[in-house]
Amino acid sequence: MIEKTIAHIESQRERFLGRLMDLLRIPSISTDPDRRADMRRGVEWVHQHFMECGINSEIVETRGHPAVIADSGPVNGAPTLLVYGHYDVQPAGDESLWSSPPFEPAVRDGTIFARGAADDKGQILAHLFAAQSWLETAGGLPVRCKFLIEGEEEIGSPNIESVVRDCAERLACDYVVLSDTPKFDAETPAITYGTKGLVYKEIIVYGPKQDLHSGQYGGTVTNPGNALAVIIASLRDAERRVTIPGFYDAVREPTAEERSRMSQLPFDEADFRAVVGVDILDGETGFNVTERRWCRPTLDVNGLLSGFTGEGASTIIPAKAMAKVSMRLVPDQDFRRISAAFDDAVQNAAPPGVKIEIKNHASCAAYLCPLDSPGIKAASMAIEAGFGNAPVFTREGGTLPILPLFKEVLGADSILIGLCHPNCNAHGPDEFFEIANFVAGMKTSAHFMHNIAVDLQ
Amino acid sequence: MIEKTIAHIESQRERFLGRLMDLLRIPSISTDPDRRADMRRGVEWVHQHFMECGINSEIVETRGHPAVIADSGPVNGAPTLLVYGHYDVQPAGDESLWSSPPFEPAVRDGTIFARGAADDKGQILAHLFAAQSWLETAGGLPVRCKFLIEGEEEIGSPNIESVVRDCAERLACDYVVLSDTPKFDAETPAITYGTKGLVYKEIIVYGPKQDLHSGQYGGTVTNPGNALAVIIASLRDAERRVTIPGFYDAVREPTAEERSRMSQLPFDEADFRAVVGVDILDGETGFNVTERRWCRPTLDVNGLLSGFTGEGASTIIPAKAMAKVSMRLVPDQDFRRISAAFDDAVQNAAPPGVKIEIKNHASCAAYLCPLDSPGIKAASMAIEAGFGNAPVFTREGGTLPILPLFKEVLGADSILIGLCHPNCNAHGPDEFFEIANFVAGMKTSAHFMHNIAVDLQ
Repeated sequence: MIEKTIAHIESQRERFLGRLMDLLRIPSISTDPDRRADMRRGVEWVHQHFMECGINSEIVETRGHPAVIADSGPVNGAPTLLVYGHYDVQPAGDESLWSSPPFEPAVRDGTIFARGAADDKGQILAHLFAAQSWLETAGGLPVRCKFLIEGEEEIGSPNIESVVRDCAERLACDYVVLSDTPKFDAETPAITYGTKGLVYKEIIVYGPKQDLHSGQYGGTVTNPGNALAVIIASLRDAERRVTIPGFYDAVREPTAEERSRMSQLPFDEADFRAVVGVDILDGETGFNVTERRWCRPTLDVNGLLSGFTGEGASTIIPAKAMAKVSMRLVPDQDFRRISAAFDDAVQNAAPPGVKIEIKNHASCAAYLCPLDSPGIKAASMAIEAGFGNAPVFTREGGTLPILPLFKEVLGADSILIGLCHPNCNAHGPDEFFEIANFVAGMKTSAHFMHNIAVDLQ
Repeated sequence: MIEKTIAHIESQRERFLGRLMDLLRIPSISTDPDRRADMRRGVEWVHQHFMECGINSEIVETRGHPAVIADSGPVNGAPTLLVYGHYDVQPAGDESLWSSPPFEPAVRDGTIFARGAADDKGQILAHLFAAQSWLETAGGLPVRCKFLIEGEEEIGSPNIESVVRDCAERLACDYVVLSDTPKFDAETPAITYGTKGLVYKEIIVYGPKQDLHSGQYGGTVTNPGNALAVIIASLRDAERRVTIPGFYDAVREPTAEERSRMSQLPFDEADFRAVVGVDILDGETGFNVTERRWCRPTLDVNGLLSGFTGEGASTIIPAKAMAKVSMRLVPDQDFRRISAAFDDAVQNAAPPGVKIEIKNHASCAAYLCPLDSPGIKAASMAIEAGFGNAPVFTREGGTLPILPLFKEVLGADSILIGLCHPNCNAHGPDEFFEIANFVAGMKTSAHFMHNIAVDLQ
């Protein structure tokens, strides 16, 4: 049966690609309050597609953007998979930096360019179309396949916890499958077994009640812009280590075996530098690039805004200054403790004469999956069949808040199968997804459904 | 004759006020490239008004915004005054913070609210209407009165130097008169005898070639936002002293007499704090508030921009980060040396892995006028007659690039007569000019023309 399904995927690639482009045209930006209607169009599209395939589906409302739960129905004696993904996307950013409009998907050189192409619409549809291909060829799936497609991943999934807890029975499964992580490099697929946690803050420094003339008032009040710079600069030392008290206390060092495995992975620093466009890589002293990306916590400015930012010169002392600052955490840092310690450190670093407000935008724990589970083995073989290459095992600097939640509520480990290019510009301009990876992803998913049914029976 | 002119000013106040409001309706924002047409309307308005009064006027084109030079013509045996001012204004900033639209002048409680009401349209028209009142009552002026009204003061007067040099003969005068400084307090007029210099910079920190996912790339590249914070924080120490090497080398300390005179001026710190809206005043250690405002150089962030600044959270490492940073200088700091030392300090403070660009937006020297000149005496008496109060002698934290230029090219000292309230929100929302000060200003100017004619004859 599997050969027929794989052949179907190949023969229907243009049709599946067209459907992907339909979804990419919907600017489902979860962080933008002006895009609520587009978010609704996004969830309706996903729901309707399940129903058209014959997979039972329901839109689950939340206090924010809705999710979709779909279920192909029980299969005698077969295990259950839960495919998780998200239909929401990041903002487009500065559209002038895009080669084609972010929400008008364009195919150039065998690659689809659009916001969400890789993160995560292209990757969720690879699984959906695999299930659809099983249905269209075999009339049924080799496993029970459930889907949870949410709409708030890019804003830290504020409501997914209640969805998972409220629908725990409907979501019960043996393994969760996700494709929201990249391949290792252009040729090598990857299974990601660890993700970082996140604490995302917004610091607002308030000074004078309004912008002041920098001549008339210079030297008399604390400038919120200068104060914000002092605060941010204080959060790391010259070794790029985070100075927040207790920050590294719970950090789990990579094992010797893990360090050795990581060091065997091909890593071309010149390529990496060319991709990001810098002459010098830099980060925490004492760790190499891969270790810093996967195993070390970081602290980054995500945005700054204060005073006059137009063309030319305006001589003001700004009334306030804002910074978005986020930290990526690793096992076993407790995000609640880090969050509180960050707030204390910011308050302590603030010079006299300003008031500090700190907003919490998102927070979650890191996650690690055991590498010796049957699910990892089945996935590894499926990837080799789908891509023609065996995967490597990697960790990830990004954050998937749902992984520790699935483990806790469903008792299921998560298998992260990366389908997209590692430099796919997920949150930048010209985000892309190679069509070859899209097709290999559909095949991998079809194989995985087959393998896991055989392995776990 | 003077009594008749003063009575005329009183009787015509509504007419003059109406003309001021006409000029305030023109959004002549010199820093905004979209306002070129409004800048042209502004200069035409000023030119036309001179011509209608019978004062010969000409629009002088520059490489930027044009200026107006007007001349009432020679008066036998009488000296010559040159009134200098500017018709350009600061941007409105966040219009939602204004109680009425910035370019729809509104009168509330005897006060005009509009961008430019005080800085500088209201103050230049006080002199123009004084000359007009002499013409309308005496048929001529007691002095030869010239006017130079430029359109680039708020962007650092990049072209005024060539205007002054090219037109040096036409602008020849015994004294320059300016009203672009405030009164000492609501009741007390002031003659300002010193202004600060300015060096205004824009720092742009370039990192990766585009915004990066802060998870995938965290810990691998220098974040331009963090780097900018480190750079800015490095420019001052914990005592709020500027750390740029050589910065204080040429600073002229206030004399003991000057410090004593400053300490006798009334200063209510609680009032000052209430006006700016802060609980604690702060600045360079070792100097009081007045000394810091008038005699000490400062360094302020005027604006910050980097990465994601919208609502919510976007987890990026920004491709670049920008800061506008300006320094106010005092005699005898050399702005060219400070400018170069700033650039060196910024480059030296930059961490590895980023590239720095520094733009120069404006720079000029500080100025001090001798307090024992006849012009100062004539102005002091005119102010007492116009306002009913003798002035105090002050220095100013703001910058008037033209003062050292006039001294050099015309050999003339400048007399700065403050007509507006010191908290008139010159560069912030709800800028205002009290009508009583507008009328007192017209009378002061009329008296000054009379006094200087008598004194210098």
